[in-house]
Amino acid sequence: MAEIRTGQNEIRNRKRIHHVPLNRDAPIGVFDSGVGGLTVAREIMRQIPNEKIIYFGDTARVPYGNKSQETVTRFSKQIVRFLQTFQVKTIVVACNTASAYAMDALEQDCDIPIIGVVKPGARMAAEVTRNGRLGVIATEATISSRIYTQYIQELNPNVTIYGKACPLFVPLVEEGLLEDPVTDEIARRYLTELIDIDIDTLILGCTHYPLIRSTLSKIMGPNVTLVNPAYETARELRQMLEQMNLLNEDPPKLGSNRYQFYVSDKAEKFMTFANSIIKYGILSARTIHIEKY
Amino acid sequence: MAEIRTGQNEIRNRKRIHHVPLNRDAPIGVFDSGVGGLTVAREIMRQIPNEKIIYFGDTARVPYGNKSQETVTRFSKQIVRFLQTFQVKTIVVACNTASAYAMDALEQDCDIPIIGVVKPGARMAAEVTRNGRLGVIATEATISSRIYTQYIQELNPNVTIYGKACPLFVPLVEEGLLEDPVTDEIARRYLTELIDIDIDTLILGCTHYPLIRSTLSKIMGPNVTLVNPAYETARELRQMLEQMNLLNEDPPKLGSNRYQFYVSDKAEKFMTFANSIIKYGILSARTIHIEKY
Repeated sequence: MAEIRTGQNEIRNRKRIHHVPLNRDAPIGVFDSGVGGLTVAREIMRQIPNEKIIYFGDTARVPYGNKSQETVTRFSKQIVRFLQTFQVKTIVVACNTASAYAMDALEQDCDIPIIGVVKPGARMAAEVTRNGRLGVIATEATISSRIYTQYIQELNPNVTIYGKACPLFVPLVEEGLLEDPVTDEIARRYLTELIDIDIDTLILGCTHYPLIRSTLSKIMGPNVTLVNPAYETARELRQMLEQMNLLNEDPPKLGSNRYQFYVSDKAEKFMTFANSIIKYGILSARTIHIEKY
Repeated sequence: MAEIRTGQNEIRNRKRIHHVPLNRDAPIGVFDSGVGGLTVAREIMRQIPNEKIIYFGDTARVPYGNKSQETVTRFSKQIVRFLQTFQVKTIVVACNTASAYAMDALEQDCDIPIIGVVKPGARMAAEVTRNGRLGVIATEATISSRIYTQYIQELNPNVTIYGKACPLFVPLVEEGLLEDPVTDEIARRYLTELIDIDIDTLILGCTHYPLIRSTLSKIMGPNVTLVNPAYETARELRQMLEQMNLLNEDPPKLGSNRYQFYVSDKAEKFMTFANSIIKYGILSARTIHIEKY
């Protein structure tokens, strides 16, 4: 549970929290390169409905999955600085690429607890596999970081992890081809080698991928468990807030802007997409200049 | 020829040039959101081989085609400021989206002549159509700007222009699926309506598209002329440099770094791609932080 700051990390955090006292009523910051992280925000809304959320999607610089560690880290640091202007009590890195590349740097910079999506997903996958053969599909960046392999093998060195970059899934999802022969064909190409090596568990290692879950499930067949890190991330977030006595026990007051959305570009297009996948009354999104942070 | 500064614009430029004397021996700045503009750079290398080029690809923030005018303009201004640090004698906006969205703003900011790819492509298309029915394929941004329609109808109000956004072409090209059944299928979907309305000329309104020219040509059939604005842009650039007495008549000296490449991310991947499409001995690319400009 390193990511939710037990042991040394937790002590370090509590020290910091002593300097900057956190407030139960404060919002949770959630960010992604674009719309993908909404699948994580949606899960947080379901599992911890009393929490307020400030969501940021970096739509001016999306995607992150084909960019370098240095660039993704620089962008992520700017976003964390932006979210901290809202006195958020914690930040969820709802993007696998940013979780893979930037977590260490963000933790060093930050005096509030931060959760990524990679460790919760890795833990879940390590638990559910029966034959010890796991697949991870993700962006080029996440796969080349080998972060899922590293975390899963820390939990269980006998497990074998096969990573496969699927760079066309994000644009196909963004174009709305969620159930489409082209998406089927591309998915078949990407997944064939994972089927051939008989994995029994597949991690959806990019927050866009749950949106094509039915296609992936059809191709992988009924014997492969698909792991969506969003669910597990929200569960661990809840647990961490409880442990730190930061869970908001009362629902936000009326008119308190429970969910606020910010983007670096194209607020309107973002809202259309967001409203199609989240049913909790999103009202509007605002555009900000993220490179100023 | 408004884009190459005749009339008022040219006078304004000549005045400015009086203040900042331009140098024949100075390089030409060329920029794009990423690798697509290399198809334009390649054409300049072919047609005006004595010129030095400073190329910038904004690989940290690619793509531009699904972003807003405000964002594309802000990014483009930063790039122009970067290119001007090399005392370039002119700048070629080798990106249709930036040409569609940012030309006016860049011209206002800039004291050197600037050429985009849209006007040369529009002029060429207006000349070659026989039945007056033209198609334009491009990014969402370029299509929604209606810039090709506007320029072509200024040249010939009796021509009808049909625009079609093809957002999946850029990721398919970036993934190297240049001749592939998936690219065929996607192209067929995008192009069917243009075939149905009997266009005789199709503008490849995104610098990535010449790389799938054979697919597009196969689907459109032999009676449709494909217009690649890169060729015409290089031709107009040469003409403008001649008119302004800025054409470099001598080949660059040995060791004078004829072609220099800069990117905002992933220099190595960029170089691999660049060397696959340009055969003029590219040596290296350097990464810079474009948001500082």
